[in-house]
Amino acid sequence: MTSSTSRPFARATVIGSGAWGTTFAALLAEAGTPTTVWARRPEVAEEITAGHNEHYLPGITLPGLVSATTDLEGAVEGAGLVVVALPSQSARQVVSPLKGRLADGAAAVSLMKGIELGTGLRMSEVLGQALGLGCERLAVVSGPNLADEIAAGQPTATVVAAQDEALAAAVAASCATSTFRPYTNTDVLGVELCGAVKNVIALAVGIAAGRGLGDNSKATLITRGLVEITRLGLALGARPETFSGLAGMGDLVATCSSPLSRNQTFGRHLGQGMTAEQASAASRGVAEGARSARAVRDLAAAHGVEMPLTAGVVAVVEGHATTEEVTDALLARPRKAEGVNAAPLG
Amino acid sequence: MTSSTSRPFARATVIGSGAWGTTFAALLAEAGTPTTVWARRPEVAEEITAGHNEHYLPGITLPGLVSATTDLEGAVEGAGLVVVALPSQSARQVVSPLKGRLADGAAAVSLMKGIELGTGLRMSEVLGQALGLGCERLAVVSGPNLADEIAAGQPTATVVAAQDEALAAAVAASCATSTFRPYTNTDVLGVELCGAVKNVIALAVGIAAGRGLGDNSKATLITRGLVEITRLGLALGARPETFSGLAGMGDLVATCSSPLSRNQTFGRHLGQGMTAEQASAASRGVAEGARSARAVRDLAAAHGVEMPLTAGVVAVVEGHATTEEVTDALLARPRKAEGVNAAPLG
Repeated sequence: MTSSTSRPFARATVIGSGAWGTTFAALLAEAGTPTTVWARRPEVAEEITAGHNEHYLPGITLPGLVSATTDLEGAVEGAGLVVVALPSQSARQVVSPLKGRLADGAAAVSLMKGIELGTGLRMSEVLGQALGLGCERLAVVSGPNLADEIAAGQPTATVVAAQDEALAAAVAASCATSTFRPYTNTDVLGVELCGAVKNVIALAVGIAAGRGLGDNSKATLITRGLVEITRLGLALGARPETFSGLAGMGDLVATCSSPLSRNQTFGRHLGQGMTAEQASAASRGVAEGARSARAVRDLAAAHGVEMPLTAGVVAVVEGHATTEEVTDALLARPRKAEGVNAAPLG
Repeated sequence: MTSSTSRPFARATVIGSGAWGTTFAALLAEAGTPTTVWARRPEVAEEITAGHNEHYLPGITLPGLVSATTDLEGAVEGAGLVVVALPSQSARQVVSPLKGRLADGAAAVSLMKGIELGTGLRMSEVLGQALGLGCERLAVVSGPNLADEIAAGQPTATVVAAQDEALAAAVAASCATSTFRPYTNTDVLGVELCGAVKNVIALAVGIAAGRGLGDNSKATLITRGLVEITRLGLALGARPETFSGLAGMGDLVATCSSPLSRNQTFGRHLGQGMTAEQASAASRGVAEGARSARAVRDLAAAHGVEMPLTAGVVAVVEGHATTEEVTDALLARPRKAEGVNAAPLG
């Protein structure tokens, strides 16, 4: 990474000290912005300030402009950019104490991929509510962005989406390095849907792998999965090109190429015959895709959109269907796979 | 596999005894059609007639309705369906002696993925010319179809494309089994372009892997690759939904998920610093993608379509650019990745 001369924010904060949050803090710092990471645990904060995060980014040295604290309110003081990288379902609770305490004109950026259970809200909407910010001060970052590869300096492209094009450009400029290349997009809805639903598809791919199915099945599930995400997105008003871009197809393929991802591992355990409880125990917690699947299914149902793959994942996770029933149905009878002239046979 | 009752062709022939040709013969036989495989070598023909093809499909027992011969003209006698599964660049030469010798009303089906060098023709066009058939008697089969997985009975979907919908339906019915599910499509052009260009993209993915790049790069190349195939297809008159379907995205993802594929292996050797000659020697021959890349680039140039990824692969294969120059350019500056509102930064 090399420093950039553009520095739209004097100071930035990243709330969350996992692999992606820490990596994004390193990118901001590399691009020239002093960045504070908020960590819940003091020992993690101390380690990050000393230039490392051995649990989540082993072997990586962080730039000198990265520091960390456990003081949430102190962390955002004077920060023009507040980046949030928390587990989706706990984001609201963690950031709510910051309502009214952000610097004047500060923007919030979501690195999170999920849909809030109960409300059906996307993560940028959750941040907007919890922090009291309008959509003109909200952005999201999403793409084929496995954190360990970025931290290792591998060339990576991403998408920065905001309704306000100037904000998208400012956030993009603040994290652009010689190896991390952000593109801007104003389709926040589409970008966030892609991020949330790809974990559900990854879980389905894991289920198939757990049953011993190979690359033909995996590719079919990924293809049908993207069709189904796109269908939901179009019904909600997103733009089709977002789904065929880096935040859509790109992130989906990257996630499904990574067999050790938590969603795939959780799915593989289900495919091998475990219950959701057993799979949770074996995977150290419920995977994001398992939680989001139900929220996505409910969102789709509310808008009259069919999402058979997502519905199948929910049925397996909740114990209402076997993995055989679901994967056989999905693989044997994809729906209108080849457009208006298509007809399933056999 | 279980037998189907539909049997639109009394007899079928498969010209070519590789893994995919032999597997497709097994599907036709399973679905009820007596099928003859033409093999160049007598020992392969004898082995197939005895129910095996140990070199290409080790461990698989072929159905009793599959037999084989080295007599090309005898092989097509009385066959209503002539399936061709040969190396793309030798198809014309091998099948030309059959011109005027096919049964009345017989149809030809291409399982091949490539563009003929020199003519720029798709494989179904090559078959039409070489066999003297009109487009109403030509079909293609393409999709996420790794042959060894199909031969092992894994559930797989595919696309049967023909301009004549009735022919597409008849071919689909003739190969449909309980685990192999064909969908029909009338966009022959789009389906064949997907099949030809995906080998080029797989080669690019191999180059990146050879340089030590990971899943972020791979996913970005696959995403940009599909954009570039789609751009060519739309310029030539194909339908956009073909590219996001099983023959497009599905086959691309399956091929790029299979690190041992010949195209990826060839690319990996290039990425590790070998010349094309050295990579050919190490990969047992030039990969299909290396041959097709030039034909695809020429086709794109003739229609004024930009295909930077394909052009980069050609430059590397021909020794006009290093893999670093090409992959860095492709990964650092994808073009309009996120649609009309996109702007590259950094």
